[in-house]
Amino acid sequence: MRRALVLASYGRFTTHPNPNVGCVIVRPELVRDDQWPDAIIGEGYHARAGEPHAEVHALRAAGSKAVGATAYVTLEPCSHHGRTPPCADALIKAGVGRVVVAISDPFPEVSGQGIARLRDAGIHVDVGVCENEAYMMNRGFFTRIARGRPFVVVKLASSMDGKIALANGESQWITSTEARADVQVGRAQAGAILTGARTVLKDDPQMNVRPEQFPSDHTYGDLPVRQPLRIVLDARAEVPANARIFADGTPVWLIRLQPSGQQLPDHVEEWVVQANTDGRIDLPSLLAQIAERNVHTVWVESGARLAGSLMQANLIDELILYQAPKFFGPDGLSLVDLPEFTRMDDVLSWDLVEATQVGPDVKLILRQPGAAQANEES
Amino acid sequence: MRRALVLASYGRFTTHPNPNVGCVIVRPELVRDDQWPDAIIGEGYHARAGEPHAEVHALRAAGSKAVGATAYVTLEPCSHHGRTPPCADALIKAGVGRVVVAISDPFPEVSGQGIARLRDAGIHVDVGVCENEAYMMNRGFFTRIARGRPFVVVKLASSMDGKIALANGESQWITSTEARADVQVGRAQAGAILTGARTVLKDDPQMNVRPEQFPSDHTYGDLPVRQPLRIVLDARAEVPANARIFADGTPVWLIRLQPSGQQLPDHVEEWVVQANTDGRIDLPSLLAQIAERNVHTVWVESGARLAGSLMQANLIDELILYQAPKFFGPDGLSLVDLPEFTRMDDVLSWDLVEATQVGPDVKLILRQPGAAQANEES
Repeated sequence: MRRALVLASYGRFTTHPNPNVGCVIVRPELVRDDQWPDAIIGEGYHARAGEPHAEVHALRAAGSKAVGATAYVTLEPCSHHGRTPPCADALIKAGVGRVVVAISDPFPEVSGQGIARLRDAGIHVDVGVCENEAYMMNRGFFTRIARGRPFVVVKLASSMDGKIALANGESQWITSTEARADVQVGRAQAGAILTGARTVLKDDPQMNVRPEQFPSDHTYGDLPVRQPLRIVLDARAEVPANARIFADGTPVWLIRLQPSGQQLPDHVEEWVVQANTDGRIDLPSLLAQIAERNVHTVWVESGARLAGSLMQANLIDELILYQAPKFFGPDGLSLVDLPEFTRMDDVLSWDLVEATQVGPDVKLILRQPGAAQANEES
Repeated sequence: MRRALVLASYGRFTTHPNPNVGCVIVRPELVRDDQWPDAIIGEGYHARAGEPHAEVHALRAAGSKAVGATAYVTLEPCSHHGRTPPCADALIKAGVGRVVVAISDPFPEVSGQGIARLRDAGIHVDVGVCENEAYMMNRGFFTRIARGRPFVVVKLASSMDGKIALANGESQWITSTEARADVQVGRAQAGAILTGARTVLKDDPQMNVRPEQFPSDHTYGDLPVRQPLRIVLDARAEVPANARIFADGTPVWLIRLQPSGQQLPDHVEEWVVQANTDGRIDLPSLLAQIAERNVHTVWVESGARLAGSLMQANLIDELILYQAPKFFGPDGLSLVDLPEFTRMDDVLSWDLVEATQVGPDVKLILRQPGAAQANEES
């Protein structure tokens, strides 16, 4: 199953909006002394929506040797006819003797049906091997289905004293090229990159994925990296049509509170959404709409205000904080706008799940306390 | 030598103001297939000033088997009569055939003399094995001798956005019990703990070492942990004689700008020191005076103002920053007071040398860019 998870990860920059799935087919009688590689007769991963599923690739490679073999799949094989025929049927037809599934399908209408169909055909099925890893690999996919909103990752970069700029606004290149390369990998795994009009107006960023900047240890499949779509919160219709974020032709959704009548390129879609009681874009309902458009994971790169709004609204699933080993002093601009708290109990607490050095900087990964894991969701 | 370094570390809570030294004596003909333990015929470490040096313990254990053996020592054996006889002579007398020294003695007057004496006696001597590790183990000792001031470690604890308290001052227990236990180990290795009058007046801390709180993986020798002396910067003589920092009888140096005439316990010494041009305690000359009193390492636990003064004066060798995964918001109180910078080039930059999780918190170790290593100092 660990090999199947690695295979699944090869599709992490390309399968969206489909989940990442890997499959390994093994002749159990060839497994000796815990040595697996010799026993593998077929393997595959799902590379892109509309293309064959992982099981199909693995079965093709195994050919007639699949009869009586064991298939490891990181997600329950599908039982319905989508753009490709059901994988459960393909496994049955190939004559496999046993199927090991990491995690069952999250869609309530079909969850368990693929497993049932395999069992009905006399195949022994085990479920739940490496369940957490399989959940984490497709956490956006699971979150969208279970909660009706995408998995929201907010990326922040600051000094060690939590500042993103000097008091006068000077701020370029707080973190290192290594940290920025790591950000590229984060962006590339998201369905959409979300930012605010202020960031666009101030920095005029491209917000695209540059795979040539990826750290060298990031293996991925043969397909070109997909450019995530971009979502710009532009309540007051301030973003001009010549912003660089529109330049490469990747779809952009401009989120506004009023129709602007602005002339926009074909790949830019203006969404008029509802305001909350403060007259600002209502973030929970916006995220629900984004999920309806099949976006699993939203990667947020924004200023302190949007980050603070998302944090206060409890809409951040993961916070990735790159800190440069610098001190800007108390007068610098803070990384997250929050109201003045008067009691320690009001302070926003997180779980620190990872602390690693990335070049000269530190990368901290924070999640919601007691964040949902596979066991809680399924 | 790695074993000798481990042995040396057993004395790290007790040898101050002497350096930590470890010694391992090996029969080279018994070393097989890189397996060392069977070849060790004697080992020891220096436990406390006035007690035998590491070499003496190791030679005693080896007895007559030391003839022709190899001795690994983490610091050049002494050649002068101090409180104990010279170790170079003891090694010669025991008949060892070879001595491997990690790093030479830092005192300019005696550096190299122990090695020369061994070589004059026909012993083969190698110098520089694990030199950096040996330097780091006694970095306070080396710093004091090379630079005439102690190695200064500043410990800070903050939220992820660099705050130490809410705007209204509320602040207790930002970091976890695990982080506070780790602080105990840091304190215990220092010659002195330095703090400011504000901290004493506000929190009335004991600033002592509580070995019962040490994390369980901190091995040390049999001796009771030494209580570092305490230094309180009290320019305006505000600290009352009943402060808890005086309670356990450990020496305290109260640093003041004028004689106070205050009635103080015998173990509390009032130092009247010079003011700088701002009328505040002159930190570089104070540190020089502290070094003259044989303090190698000063561990600073203070508020944002003293931390900021030390940082701006470029007097911090190592910064240990514990961050709790919390956000206090921009109105909270910052961890380091610094002036308002207007150019990114003015910002204070550090080298991040370590990032580890300590319980729910992260511990970041920062050093001066290009901080002195053994190779640069020796």
